[in-house]
Amino acid sequence: MASEGDIVVSAMINLLSAIAFLVAFAVLRLQPFNDRVYFPKWYLKGVRASPRSSGPFLRKFVNLDFRTYLRFLNWMPHALKMPQPELIDHAGLDSAVYIRIYLLGLKIFVPITLLAFAVLVPVNWTGEALKHSEDLTFSDIDKLSISNIPSGSQKLWTHIAMAYVFSFWTLYVLYKEYEIVTALRLHFLASEHRRPDQFTVLVRNVPPDPDEPVSEHVEHFFRVNHPDHYLTHQVVYNANNLAKLVAKKKGMENWLTYYQTKYERDPTKRPKTKTGFWGLWGKTVDAIDYYASEIDKLIEEEDAEREKVTNDPKAIVPAAFVSFKSRWAAAVCAQTQQSRNPTIWLTEWAPEPRDVYWNNLSIPYVSLNVRRLLMLVALFFLTFFFMIPIALVQSMASIEGIEKVLPFLKPLIELDFIKSVVQGFLPGIALKIFLAILPTILMIMSKIEGFTSISSLERISAAKYHLFILVNVFLGSIIAGAAFEQLKTFLDQSPTEIPKTVGVAIPIRATFFITYIMVDGWAGIAAEVLRLVPLIMFHVKNTFLVKTDRDREQAMDPGSISFSICEPRIQLYFLLGLVYSVVTPILLPFIIVFFAFAYMVFRHQIINVYDQKYESGAAFWPDVHRRITIGLIISQLLLMGLMSTKDAAQSTPVILVLPVLTIWFHKVCKGRFESAFVKFPLQEAMVKDTLERATEPNLNLKAYLHDAYVHPVFKEAGAEGSATPAMDEEESNYLVATKRSSRACSNAETGSDVV
Amino acid sequence: MASEGDIVVSAMINLLSAIAFLVAFAVLRLQPFNDRVYFPKWYLKGVRASPRSSGPFLRKFVNLDFRTYLRFLNWMPHALKMPQPELIDHAGLDSAVYIRIYLLGLKIFVPITLLAFAVLVPVNWTGEALKHSEDLTFSDIDKLSISNIPSGSQKLWTHIAMAYVFSFWTLYVLYKEYEIVTALRLHFLASEHRRPDQFTVLVRNVPPDPDEPVSEHVEHFFRVNHPDHYLTHQVVYNANNLAKLVAKKKGMENWLTYYQTKYERDPTKRPKTKTGFWGLWGKTVDAIDYYASEIDKLIEEEDAEREKVTNDPKAIVPAAFVSFKSRWAAAVCAQTQQSRNPTIWLTEWAPEPRDVYWNNLSIPYVSLNVRRLLMLVALFFLTFFFMIPIALVQSMASIEGIEKVLPFLKPLIELDFIKSVVQGFLPGIALKIFLAILPTILMIMSKIEGFTSISSLERISAAKYHLFILVNVFLGSIIAGAAFEQLKTFLDQSPTEIPKTVGVAIPIRATFFITYIMVDGWAGIAAEVLRLVPLIMFHVKNTFLVKTDRDREQAMDPGSISFSICEPRIQLYFLLGLVYSVVTPILLPFIIVFFAFAYMVFRHQIINVYDQKYESGAAFWPDVHRRITIGLIISQLLLMGLMSTKDAAQSTPVILVLPVLTIWFHKVCKGRFESAFVKFPLQEAMVKDTLERATEPNLNLKAYLHDAYVHPVFKEAGAEGSATPAMDEEESNYLVATKRSSRACSNAETGSDVV
Repeated sequence: MASEGDIVVSAMINLLSAIAFLVAFAVLRLQPFNDRVYFPKWYLKGVRASPRSSGPFLRKFVNLDFRTYLRFLNWMPHALKMPQPELIDHAGLDSAVYIRIYLLGLKIFVPITLLAFAVLVPVNWTGEALKHSEDLTFSDIDKLSISNIPSGSQKLWTHIAMAYVFSFWTLYVLYKEYEIVTALRLHFLASEHRRPDQFTVLVRNVPPDPDEPVSEHVEHFFRVNHPDHYLTHQVVYNANNLAKLVAKKKGMENWLTYYQTKYERDPTKRPKTKTGFWGLWGKTVDAIDYYASEIDKLIEEEDAEREKVTNDPKAIVPAAFVSFKSRWAAAVCAQTQQSRNPTIWLTEWAPEPRDVYWNNLSIPYVSLNVRRLLMLVALFFLTFFFMIPIALVQSMASIEGIEKVLPFLKPLIELDFIKSVVQGFLPGIALKIFLAILPTILMIMSKIEGFTSISSLERISAAKYHLFILVNVFLGSIIAGAAFEQLKTFLDQSPTEIPKTVGVAIPIRATFFITYIMVDGWAGIAAEVLRLVPLIMFHVKNTFLVKTDRDREQAMDPGSISFSICEPRIQLYFLLGLVYSVVTPILLPFIIVFFAFAYMVFRHQIINVYDQKYESGAAFWPDVHRRITIGLIISQLLLMGLMSTKDAAQSTPVILVLPVLTIWFHKVCKGRFESAFVKFPLQEAMVKDTLERATEPNLNLKAYLHDAYVHPVFKEAGAEGSATPAMDEEESNYLVATKRSSRACSNAETGSDVV
Repeated sequence: MASEGDIVVSAMINLLSAIAFLVAFAVLRLQPFNDRVYFPKWYLKGVRASPRSSGPFLRKFVNLDFRTYLRFLNWMPHALKMPQPELIDHAGLDSAVYIRIYLLGLKIFVPITLLAFAVLVPVNWTGEALKHSEDLTFSDIDKLSISNIPSGSQKLWTHIAMAYVFSFWTLYVLYKEYEIVTALRLHFLASEHRRPDQFTVLVRNVPPDPDEPVSEHVEHFFRVNHPDHYLTHQVVYNANNLAKLVAKKKGMENWLTYYQTKYERDPTKRPKTKTGFWGLWGKTVDAIDYYASEIDKLIEEEDAEREKVTNDPKAIVPAAFVSFKSRWAAAVCAQTQQSRNPTIWLTEWAPEPRDVYWNNLSIPYVSLNVRRLLMLVALFFLTFFFMIPIALVQSMASIEGIEKVLPFLKPLIELDFIKSVVQGFLPGIALKIFLAILPTILMIMSKIEGFTSISSLERISAAKYHLFILVNVFLGSIIAGAAFEQLKTFLDQSPTEIPKTVGVAIPIRATFFITYIMVDGWAGIAAEVLRLVPLIMFHVKNTFLVKTDRDREQAMDPGSISFSICEPRIQLYFLLGLVYSVVTPILLPFIIVFFAFAYMVFRHQIINVYDQKYESGAAFWPDVHRRITIGLIISQLLLMGLMSTKDAAQSTPVILVLPVLTIWFHKVCKGRFESAFVKFPLQEAMVKDTLERATEPNLNLKAYLHDAYVHPVFKEAGAEGSATPAMDEEESNYLVATKRSSRACSNAETGSDVV
């Protein structure tokens, strides 16, 4: 067990590294040549012009105004200043609600911490269970924890009473927060902006019809069954090949622009290139001519493919976006069953156009079921048995293994220094690589499961990751041994035995988790704000790869909050806080510091850096709510197990009331709020329709919706050519057009800051 | 363990009693004076006139045509003759689908039995595990069961393979049956008859409005949010008091008629009565004058109450039946969310008018949640701890207890004969009384939970009863000891240990369950067809109580299938069949005889006897399907436990695949079929609407729906007075009017058969 001295040292080291990151951030963010790394959001919004466009040369790269350094921490109040409505307008509801998760952590744990320190810490301190055993070296942390209460002591009722208070407080805060987020979402959905998805329903599993193609079939079906409301529809093309061609052509065009710029600067020398990969090898040719001819070829290919896709009936997948004359009619169609066979003509709210995951629109119903089953089994094995292949790789990646496969490295490896590095480094690397690619694996699994929007893919991946963290980080840290060994132990134990086994280990592992919070939480968040990897990547790309403005824009890479990775990690802190609130309250301040710090940092990031890829209107909140509730139930069950090992078995029924009430609370919340996240009430739709009819009686909705749900590959082609009237109207829609209009803005800067 | 001799004896006794019941039935049903007991359905339909209305006096009571006795079994082919569409038309879809449960049992178990006897019985017979232990007396039944296979034998793989075959066959049959029932339901719903519930939605939790009463509030809300579709609505009155008064008045009127008839027959003597309870004590008065004046008083009271209910805004509960202009609009409203707060303006399909459970329409959302939680806890204690109060009662109801409370009975009780009877009889009686009233208790619990239709109340009660049977009859018979002791054992055992504990006991209890099937199944069904209790009750009532025709009609008491009691009991047979199919195949023929016999008997009963109280369109099928699936999963888990005690632990993962697949199958079926039972597809609604608009362009729908959803107490008052045009139209609707029109028919017979 770590003494409190160890904790202090660990806290110091982590605090120092966190502060070092923060100081580095404070200095680096003031340098103009880092501006695009730390404020990309403003560039994308078109609000911020390049700071390097004026002034002396050095000023363009280094900030020499030393007064600004004195205020190096003022990004913190800045980050907190923006009021929530403005924040929602600036960064979208998803991001604004995402940072509310950290705020929720503060709301739950600050009062709990105060109460725990006022009541539980004194009770634990006067427990005296650990004083008598002089031979063991118990740290002061254990004296402040429930371990210091002797078995069977009446003082344990204080802990049970506190468990009740903490649980009810958590549930109260959760309820209030659900209420607030629901109101935010409904207000957001009911906000003034017209959006294509408000009028549109995604129809999947259109049954094949021998007499007419998909497009006519869809139109006839909805004309018949929604006669007064059907407006138009958009079939979905299988445009994967076309998208590849378009991407290839874009790359070529970038090279062409690059060489043309080069040639303009130095017209004496025509640039040359090689035909091989990245121009590194192959036959040397004239670059401009080569790329021009390649592009011509690709344009022809693309046209052929486009022709094929648009004319070949087989390229149309059995899905469509059907738009209605009013929000009311779309709400009706999305919420009702169309056909007597519930596996065809499936309707659901269309995701926002940016949010559509095009590849999954055509999966038939049966296939979907099989995929889900397979992925469920795969998830089970991944969660419990992932250590087996990794152990195999580790055993192969030993010194002996390397010597066998790569014998020429033998003399090098046999050096003592290198040998120890390899031995210390190799065993962990397979695990580290696995953990690094795990979110990607989970995302691929979710994609195989066939969800149709990026937001739902992220939500499902988050659920999988949450399970993995719960089993392998939380349980895995408490009980030694790989997950599949735990699984076997648990299966052989009685259901009442499991909380005991885990419960007993809980107080012992408190110091480990405090260290974990400091390393993963504090230092991790500080690293987040520094953006070291994007910073390096930007400068590397800017120096070596950037050829055109579009390239620079891509090098800027604002990134976005990866909900599927970050949210399950936050859940671990909620779980730790709830589990230890009664057992070892000393852990709580560390949790609070994490939540407060993370709240500030992420608020800064969503204001200045991240650019959301889609807007789901906080559709993830029911998941967040459910997982915190799961954490609460776990904490209650573990407390029950711990208590029964403390000779307080008579308390079991008293504590058992808590999980029952918590599950019931979850059901009540679900009934009360969840529908706001999956349905759209007719009353709201009618209010908006009526308002719109009154304010814009001559709105041409059909033109507005004309190509809202066209596959992006067709859209970009259209944007390059002549923009239709529908396109112009769409440009005024901030949600759809964020990316495009921002691109337009940065195009306007063309030439001003080419390196 | 019972030898096969015991089984044969038991089978003989039960067969004999079953045959005795059947012979008694065959004779009794031919007697004209029993005609109303055995063919009430035809009386209610108005097809059968009283057989006693013509012919000599004796012929009215006893059938002297001895030729008919020779064909005493011809009710069986008769029962099987009616084709299914006619059956649905005659008895309703609920009943027709109900008997398909027995047919499903045959479909599942006949092939399984054949295969088990062809494969498993020979394998078990040659197992030879039991031959070597000569000291134990194993019956031949055990030689045919899996007990005869030695531990670790490779022959056990045959059983596992058979478990796969049986599971897949069961799933296949279940899927096909779900498909058939779904088609039947959809066809039934789409059948030609217009019904008020097709156009109507039940709205609950209408929020209070300070400015306008409920009725206006509902109208305004739906006029605004369904502007083109809203037709009319009907508020719900809290008419419980009024209903009581009306019932009381009816009783009085019956007495008046009775005395008037008596006086007409013998005008010399004015009948007298006493003012006390049932005319048994109190002051003697002139009967006709007394009842006439009492009725006058009640009419006044009733008018006052009626006035109060219709005018007092507080008597209107916050619920309403809202009707729409088309089925399409009703389907839309029922399936969508109306308000941004999902706990108000809750819409659901209106139950059929007869099916409405009026008392539960006004329960607010929060109260509903609290009620469900409380009932869940109550159900848990009822299921696992019901033996505790019964044991208490039993300990009090001993000889000593009686002597203490009623000392004057002491000399009587001390007689040896009576003592032994009391001692044998008393301990069981508390349990028997409890089991007899259990379905009523469960129904009351379901009513407290607040479901709004009688059909859903029955379904929920059935689910509760199923749990009780599963725990207390199935598990309770396998493992000795009360349920709460089992619960403790199970909680202290590991999850892998439970299937083992139960699995080991399975083969041992085979003979017990065979006896159970014969007593409860065979003899029980034979008793069902004899209708002994209704037969006796009818003749008792007819002799002593029947005063008017309406009384006779009530004495006839056709009854109806009590889904909430019968269906969970059938499930036990499915469970037994599935569990023993691999373990002790010799049990299967008993199951098959039960299903075949029950199918025939219940087919006869629904054709000739039962009169359904409502029609839910087989809405219970998803429950039936789910419970059979649960039985299948239980059988697979128990087989897994049994196998691991047979030193075949390596088979565990092989068998584990089965429950996973079964759960997945259940999910697929749910997705594929369940929506047909909870939603109404728009396509179907549109087809019917269009058809109706073409065939009856001048239909006055508002008049048709005018008082379809009026509380029955108002309706009957209206029917006694002048019938509105809406009423007449409604009378022609066979589904709503069954009861009333049948009543009209029996009224037409007035005087023809007064005793």
